Amino acid sequence: MTGNKILTNPVSASRRSFLTSVMAGGAAVVAGSDVARAAGDPLITEIQDWNRYSGDGVDAAPYGEPSEFEANVVRRDVPWLTADPVSSVNFTPLHELDGIITPNGLCFERHHGGVAIIDPADHRIMINGLVDTPLVFTMEDLKRFPRENKLYFLECAANSGMEWRGAQLNGCQFTHGMVHCVMYTGVPLKYLLEEAGVKSTGKWLLAEGADSSAMSRSIPMEKVLDDCLVAFKMNGEALRPEQGYPVRLVVPGWEGNMWIKWLRRLEVGDRPYGQREETSKYTDLLSDGMARRHTFMMDVKSVITSPSPQMPVTHGKGPLVITGLAWSGNGRISKVDVSLDGGRNWKTARLSGPSLPMALHRFYLDIDWDGSELFLQSRAIDEAGMVQPSKDMLRQARGVNSIYHNNGIQTWQVRADGVVENVEVS
Amino acid sequence: MTGNKILTNPVSASRRSFLTSVMAGGAAVVAGSDVARAAGDPLITEIQDWNRYSGDGVDAAPYGEPSEFEANVVRRDVPWLTADPVSSVNFTPLHELDGIITPNGLCFERHHGGVAIIDPADHRIMINGLVDTPLVFTMEDLKRFPRENKLYFLECAANSGMEWRGAQLNGCQFTHGMVHCVMYTGVPLKYLLEEAGVKSTGKWLLAEGADSSAMSRSIPMEKVLDDCLVAFKMNGEALRPEQGYPVRLVVPGWEGNMWIKWLRRLEVGDRPYGQREETSKYTDLLSDGMARRHTFMMDVKSVITSPSPQMPVTHGKGPLVITGLAWSGNGRISKVDVSLDGGRNWKTARLSGPSLPMALHRFYLDIDWDGSELFLQSRAIDEAGMVQPSKDMLRQARGVNSIYHNNGIQTWQVRADGVVENVEVS
Repeated sequence: MTGNKILTNPVSASRRSFLTSVMAGGAAVVAGSDVARAAGDPLITEIQDWNRYSGDGVDAAPYGEPSEFEANVVRRDVPWLTADPVSSVNFTPLHELDGIITPNGLCFERHHGGVAIIDPADHRIMINGLVDTPLVFTMEDLKRFPRENKLYFLECAANSGMEWRGAQLNGCQFTHGMVHCVMYTGVPLKYLLEEAGVKSTGKWLLAEGADSSAMSRSIPMEKVLDDCLVAFKMNGEALRPEQGYPVRLVVPGWEGNMWIKWLRRLEVGDRPYGQREETSKYTDLLSDGMARRHTFMMDVKSVITSPSPQMPVTHGKGPLVITGLAWSGNGRISKVDVSLDGGRNWKTARLSGPSLPMALHRFYLDIDWDGSELFLQSRAIDEAGMVQPSKDMLRQARGVNSIYHNNGIQTWQVRADGVVENVEVS
Repeated sequence: MTGNKILTNPVSASRRSFLTSVMAGGAAVVAGSDVARAAGDPLITEIQDWNRYSGDGVDAAPYGEPSEFEANVVRRDVPWLTADPVSSVNFTPLHELDGIITPNGLCFERHHGGVAIIDPADHRIMINGLVDTPLVFTMEDLKRFPRENKLYFLECAANSGMEWRGAQLNGCQFTHGMVHCVMYTGVPLKYLLEEAGVKSTGKWLLAEGADSSAMSRSIPMEKVLDDCLVAFKMNGEALRPEQGYPVRLVVPGWEGNMWIKWLRRLEVGDRPYGQREETSKYTDLLSDGMARRHTFMMDVKSVITSPSPQMPVTHGKGPLVITGLAWSGNGRISKVDVSLDGGRNWKTARLSGPSLPMALHRFYLDIDWDGSELFLQSRAIDEAGMVQPSKDMLRQARGVNSIYHNNGIQTWQVRADGVVENVEVS
């Protein structure tokens, strides 16, 4: 592993050799008078014909779409995973993305009863239970309250769930793709509850969706009053249908199924409601037969998105950008370490992009790869000091019956030929 | 105007009356035992039938799209504005958006020769001119250099251009819609130039596009080395075709036509190149017949996006969310003031969302509207201390021959019936 130099940033003297490698590996050196020849190269004059015609005008696409050359950058489901696609999941193509924002069209979906199609003009949100004044809001009512804008990750509690019993699916889209990060616009839920007047006995809130599963979860009042939003926009535009259009709950840093989509009712109670999705599901079965419940927060976690099984190294040795994502329900990520040798040695990765609480963080490690086998790992540390554990540490603590809350360190084997596999090292 | 109370945040005692107004205006009060009746209301049980069926499953849309109820949230062009749609513009629907991120499908387009359709496998970027080693890069080469992620606004120099001679188009989509804000992922241009080696005489850079107009602009080397990016992703995914797929230049805070799309060539020179789009166009004709040129930076600016002509007030008096956007090529926005009376009195608006240099900033003023006529204005101040001027101040300084760089204060007249018009006040 000693052959793999870590490249520092900004560009330093040591980077010259890195860049020479770039040229040797790919970029053509055009010496002096060859520039004109390069410009007259068949590639540029014949294959590169894109300046020979006028393309589409500004009237062609009122709502734009990706390039035809990006047709493989899509959400993917795993048909054998669930009995029916209306109660199933698809996955964000993390390996194809960069930065910290997920485009709305690529945010993973998890439905318990298919996508409800709702006319916002006819939709209502009711507040009832232990309140002074039960209320029903229209969408227009909601939009008359003060709003906030927050960038948050949303992770399904079952993300990486199949990794509990060993390396399974070959690609970070499938092992870690039940996470996305968008900017929400919404009304702090406390404003709506203050309007209704929560009685002193009101300690929990039941949030209920208008979909066919009537998805519902109990949320402690401290969290509700702290930072929950009733959101109607994501990344600037209306929520997408599969993300709860016209209105969803935002429960920052907590497991995704609590972020009730197609929100229709909020009931204040004096204890948790014990709904299906917080008793028979979304609890963590331990090895002694007992189960953890109310495991709301998503713990500190990270994954390398490239190289990864769906994003092999195709350019051979030399400069290689290793990149990934880190996040934590505790707040900001303070540090990400990357190992090239399965956890024996660690290097501090570079974070790039805004560092916002309970949002995705993007990290990079730029190396000069010597072409030897790598065992890539990333390990995130959050501002609360929590350190991402190994999968073995998680198994020792919780056994292997769990489905949820697997935040263990992921290993990718990069072979000398650039092919990448999901493996475990111990 | 004294009847329009400004509502403070967080919620204070004065907000009770505001919320009472919300109820009177819209939200239904459901008293005690009426809750069950409300749940059994025909609206909820018959019109709200969205829980009676299973909707689409997770296999329905590999790349998602907006709700059918959002079909009017689209880019719009103005056919009479230009001779042909391949050298024209369409506009971001700012009035329908919130937060600070523009979804990729709604980012305005400005082409000088239509959208080039480029296969990234065959695309090349050449660096030539006053360099030690001319180079040609593939897209794969580019992706082996260290990357950065930055959220930046992009504004066309001609945004609000038709307002120089008085209020014209009735809607902020048309008066201010040539701006968008996305997160870019790209390689700092200085890394590529350091690889080629800029000669000491190299003081300017010509950037050239691969589209049929070969769009090209000269950029001073200080700016190039400071913060320009060669970007290949926007909001996490590949650039959209109309935004320069597979690669564009990012020139933070400077006028949009310098952000060369479909980037194919970077030539280092010792002086500005005097290209068409920096001589006959994108210069500012003054009243004495002289023209300002090299007016690169986009000055401090803001606009109220709602209420606005396309987003009238439909709910009558009472609580009203006034919101808009502010931005500056100088860096961050430090303050936005809002006037309800055409600039006689000003109130400090609330900023919400991350405050990032050369990015859009979102502001709100939450008021209790008394139903009387309003003349809404917003005035932004940036961290360099620059204050957005009135349109009259701009005209006094530059006459009315200009097309570009109109950052004047916009006025919307809100009539008692909620209809909004583009007007001027003096």
